[in-house]
Amino acid sequence: MVSLPSRCFSFSQAKAQNNPTMGESNDGSILAEFLAVAVDAAKSAGEVIRKGFYQTKHVEHKGQVDLVTETDKACEELIFNHLKKHYPDHKFIGEETSAAFGTAELTDEPTWIVDPLDGTTNFVHGFPFVCVSIGLAIGKVPTVGVVYNPIIGELFTGVRGQGAFLNGNPIKASSQSELLKALLVTEVGTKRDKSTVDATTNRINNLLFKVRSLRMCGSLALNLCGIACGRLDLCYEIGFGGPWDVAAGAVIVHEAGGLVFDPSGGDFDLMSCRVAASNCHLKDAFILVLTETD
Amino acid sequence: MVSLPSRCFSFSQAKAQNNPTMGESNDGSILAEFLAVAVDAAKSAGEVIRKGFYQTKHVEHKGQVDLVTETDKACEELIFNHLKKHYPDHKFIGEETSAAFGTAELTDEPTWIVDPLDGTTNFVHGFPFVCVSIGLAIGKVPTVGVVYNPIIGELFTGVRGQGAFLNGNPIKASSQSELLKALLVTEVGTKRDKSTVDATTNRINNLLFKVRSLRMCGSLALNLCGIACGRLDLCYEIGFGGPWDVAAGAVIVHEAGGLVFDPSGGDFDLMSCRVAASNCHLKDAFILVLTETD
Repeated sequence: MVSLPSRCFSFSQAKAQNNPTMGESNDGSILAEFLAVAVDAAKSAGEVIRKGFYQTKHVEHKGQVDLVTETDKACEELIFNHLKKHYPDHKFIGEETSAAFGTAELTDEPTWIVDPLDGTTNFVHGFPFVCVSIGLAIGKVPTVGVVYNPIIGELFTGVRGQGAFLNGNPIKASSQSELLKALLVTEVGTKRDKSTVDATTNRINNLLFKVRSLRMCGSLALNLCGIACGRLDLCYEIGFGGPWDVAAGAVIVHEAGGLVFDPSGGDFDLMSCRVAASNCHLKDAFILVLTETD
Repeated sequence: MVSLPSRCFSFSQAKAQNNPTMGESNDGSILAEFLAVAVDAAKSAGEVIRKGFYQTKHVEHKGQVDLVTETDKACEELIFNHLKKHYPDHKFIGEETSAAFGTAELTDEPTWIVDPLDGTTNFVHGFPFVCVSIGLAIGKVPTVGVVYNPIIGELFTGVRGQGAFLNGNPIKASSQSELLKALLVTEVGTKRDKSTVDATTNRINNLLFKVRSLRMCGSLALNLCGIACGRLDLCYEIGFGGPWDVAAGAVIVHEAGGLVFDPSGGDFDLMSCRVAASNCHLKDAFILVLTETD
């Protein structure tokens, strides 16, 4: 269980937490090096994604509405090789790896949690909301995050205690304090059994009376970055693919002064496949509405 | 009532219809000139939007969840002045103008139908799906269309009989023929009365069992362009703002080999505030699902 503080703060006030495996707490230079290596990996994978995006793709099916592309696999291999070369002792959890070998367990060891291509449906359709998502958890706490959309050319980064950035410029969550003026983002996910679909649309129905409008763009990692840079005010998703969808985004939101929590209002659990995020003003009101329909 | 042919065809096969007010049918050079003037207007307005997008904005309220910004008004004035200078005898219908003076009537005269800033909610929130939409109807038929997203840098154009383009490159609607693999886009609109919201979420609930996934990005004009360039397969919206949201997009979809029709399956009516669009394979299956919940 990963607990993120729920008070309002700006990224400049953020402090690194103690990380038992880091040797020394607040070791900013090591974290900055981790970030640089992750950014290199994300940019290399991004180049592969960018090229594939404009080509006809050979597609396999994971399920009825989910897709894995050759690009997805190539990017995961590229990222994992890059990270392994620099950090052979670190652990790795990736969407493709976990799908093939069962869900990996998250320990206190430094663990890279990677979605080589978030938004695979968008990728297959040529819809430009796709990204690489690379997170590093230390002591189970999301500590370094990189989310890169190579089509639109947006690189979101965050390091615990060192702020969040979009293409190198500091970002912060929105200052919206009225739910009725808030822009919400969610996704319908890939499950199409009746109870999941009904729960999804019931939640949306209820929320539409309480917020300004609703967006669904097909990438949870980019949705979280939307919260971090203040484009979006509220985000939730229940039952997504795995921790690779949120590990990087959670750091970036946190460092932008936003909040990441469980849709029930409890602490965010990186492994639960449940997430909600907001700026620091809207959390309580948002949880109230989210829990009305559960 | 504007009827668009519902057979499959490629943009290269498209032919201009007779336009009673054009003097001569298929007058491609005049239409190309109209397009060039509209593109100039869209690019000038786009520059204003791009600058405003990154600034704090002074916002007025039109309704509970709808916004008009100073940029919106400045862009409409800029576009209308530009078009009036070149075509003083043409008619004009614009979102702001019509809101101020009542909905304008569409006649057979050449009529510019303009949304100076589609996606105002996105604009206010800094979400990068915003655009200028400039359509020209002649004999009530959408004949020239320009949709320009100045943030992402995408210029969609279409001229009746002359094809559809994205940044100068020909585009075409997708070739997807299975509804279950189709990517659907819609919007929740701005009305929040219970019957509208219930109808909206009931429709979504039903559609989720039939299509791959759902997108909502906050700009109907860009949604239609998504159909035109094959990023999206299915689009519908019922009860949107006015003809300015669809006049340009309808030409672009049509010229990309896509279909524009009423969600009931009837002919598309530019003034009805109802629209559906798809590639040429999915129309019948799409209508079947759309009409199940009406």
